[in-house]
Amino acid sequence: MQNFVFHNPTKIIFGRNTVPTIGSESVALGRRGLLVYGQNSVRETGLYDQVTASLAGAGIEMVEHSGVQSNPMLGHVREGIAKVKEHNLNVIIAVGGGSVIDSAKAIAAGSVVDHDVWKFFSGKKSIKNALPVTTVLTLAASGSEMNSGMVITNDTTQEKFGFGHRLLHPKASILDPEVTFTVPPDYTAYGAIDAIAHVLEFYMTTRDPDTPVQDRFMEGLIENAMNSCERCLKDPCDYGGRANLMWTATLALNGLTGAGLGRVGFPMHMIEHSLSALYKVPHGAGLSVVIPGWLSWYRRHDEARIAMLGRRIFPPSDLQPYTDAQIAERTIIIFKNWFGKIEGPVSLEELDIPVTDIPQIAENALALARFWRLNEYSQQTIEEILSLCR
Amino acid sequence: MQNFVFHNPTKIIFGRNTVPTIGSESVALGRRGLLVYGQNSVRETGLYDQVTASLAGAGIEMVEHSGVQSNPMLGHVREGIAKVKEHNLNVIIAVGGGSVIDSAKAIAAGSVVDHDVWKFFSGKKSIKNALPVTTVLTLAASGSEMNSGMVITNDTTQEKFGFGHRLLHPKASILDPEVTFTVPPDYTAYGAIDAIAHVLEFYMTTRDPDTPVQDRFMEGLIENAMNSCERCLKDPCDYGGRANLMWTATLALNGLTGAGLGRVGFPMHMIEHSLSALYKVPHGAGLSVVIPGWLSWYRRHDEARIAMLGRRIFPPSDLQPYTDAQIAERTIIIFKNWFGKIEGPVSLEELDIPVTDIPQIAENALALARFWRLNEYSQQTIEEILSLCR
Repeated sequence: MQNFVFHNPTKIIFGRNTVPTIGSESVALGRRGLLVYGQNSVRETGLYDQVTASLAGAGIEMVEHSGVQSNPMLGHVREGIAKVKEHNLNVIIAVGGGSVIDSAKAIAAGSVVDHDVWKFFSGKKSIKNALPVTTVLTLAASGSEMNSGMVITNDTTQEKFGFGHRLLHPKASILDPEVTFTVPPDYTAYGAIDAIAHVLEFYMTTRDPDTPVQDRFMEGLIENAMNSCERCLKDPCDYGGRANLMWTATLALNGLTGAGLGRVGFPMHMIEHSLSALYKVPHGAGLSVVIPGWLSWYRRHDEARIAMLGRRIFPPSDLQPYTDAQIAERTIIIFKNWFGKIEGPVSLEELDIPVTDIPQIAENALALARFWRLNEYSQQTIEEILSLCR
Repeated sequence: MQNFVFHNPTKIIFGRNTVPTIGSESVALGRRGLLVYGQNSVRETGLYDQVTASLAGAGIEMVEHSGVQSNPMLGHVREGIAKVKEHNLNVIIAVGGGSVIDSAKAIAAGSVVDHDVWKFFSGKKSIKNALPVTTVLTLAASGSEMNSGMVITNDTTQEKFGFGHRLLHPKASILDPEVTFTVPPDYTAYGAIDAIAHVLEFYMTTRDPDTPVQDRFMEGLIENAMNSCERCLKDPCDYGGRANLMWTATLALNGLTGAGLGRVGFPMHMIEHSLSALYKVPHGAGLSVVIPGWLSWYRRHDEARIAMLGRRIFPPSDLQPYTDAQIAERTIIIFKNWFGKIEGPVSLEELDIPVTDIPQIAENALALARFWRLNEYSQQTIEEILSLCR
């Protein structure tokens, strides 16, 4: 096991009827809030009314900042920062999924400095302070509700960049599985795929093979993401399915899976971010294409690791002495088939992306590879992986 | 899944050469420290020198409070509280295992009130404040380094009582596996058994069968406690073995395993505490006797749960369609044999406790059963369980 620091101070309030605690959790941090959310769906479901009633009841004055898009945009973050500064707000309340929470974090960091917030993402400035963030989660997917990361797309440069800082952990996050009953099948599936990708990234890129504690934890998360996703697709109001998917997605990227693995990477996200940035593909849909392709490429480097995962979570039903190569191949096929089963796309073609675009996508991804110091990924390597995404 | 709040703000600093960070971590919390530790072992290994050099280097003035015993005593806690009050100290630094850390927490809580600290344990007063605690862990066992619990024995009444409060989470805990290279085989084994017990308690007493995320996590922890313990017994300086055992023991009781299970209990600890209190048995040794006995009794109530665990972590090597009853029985035997293999006692007789004492032990345990609201445990039930501890 490698040395690590694990420090996750986010308070999770999980379960039925927990949304009305947002007021009391937030007012302890500030009395003038920026309410960040996305489109109309939170209004239609009644969640908006619940949240604003709780905030008002706690005595919080609110300024609204709606309109966050999936793959959230820098321009919209800048507008939020301007509102915070204009109204001298002191707490950011996010009601939404990963895009909304990530936007809230970027606003929280950008509101306490004079320079432009993108300088944090481009590495020119580092975060030294941030406003407190609370969240009400509406989508089981990104894990942003219990981690310090954020991903924002620069509308001008078409760069989708992400990074994290310990000051960006939400102070409190409210996870009511019933809030996700209305998530449509495609986004339910994309969320599960995102959670699976978060686990796979660390599981596969670990530098240390001697981390059985983390390995068993990660295998359990992947197994549960798949099982609970299927339950939710079968019955969108299956509380247990929604609850298990929600908690799985949160745990999939809260720092615990990667603690002790050494410097892990996000190569699949690195490539997917380019698909999202260039083609406005939903993040989970892009991952659904990239995961099998990346695994097919990675198999040439470490088929034993893929086989270990496969033997644990997809054990063959007979006792034949299969080789690692056989199990690894089978594991990739199982993932790909399962993504197809839950109606995730599994090729660039299904995303209407022509293979002739591969060089251009790889060039875009390379910028993020450099920023994330994934130095083993060249233009050629990324093109090779993308050519396996079919 | 049941509603829950999960909030664990302890900062974990894990790995080689991390002990020298104790000074910088502690000085941020206070400049006048009480240094709590046990016997001479921390002096003999050089750990004492490392810690005090770091604390002095950070500018912390220290008052010493050594002599914590395993199964720590109320009288010694009271002496520590008197020192804090006399010298107006503002941070508690624990260097040791669970007993030392538990003592530090009790001192941290008792130092900020005028009444006797035992009133917290007897339920007559509740904690509203506490001094900050930092720790350097020397034994993989209790999990106290990353939770809010503590167990103290009242020397006068022979009550071994435990409870927790969110303000008692250590602010920072330093876990260097190399520090545990010198832990002798018996305490290495007892520590692993303690960690296994912590997981089994929740796994078995859950009120909710629909928690697969937690179930897979717990199964992995038990598997790893066993495997890493064996590695440590084979080679006490196997860094990976020590590291995996240490992280497993910490995760086994940091709140994550039980989150979502509803009100879980500690029935095995409830009975073991009486063995420790009445016979000065090491906690892990007592658990080694109680676990198989309790499981044999519990099997009559929920053999399916024991079988689920067994199928996951001790899968039969053939594909026979064994019944739950068969698998449950086999699982209990595997645990009992394994405890024997690592030289844990597996009967009251091996602890030199006569079976004629069973009524008296049960009477002592009953007081804790009532305090912990384990209302399904009567004198007769506890006697029945103890009679299976052979």
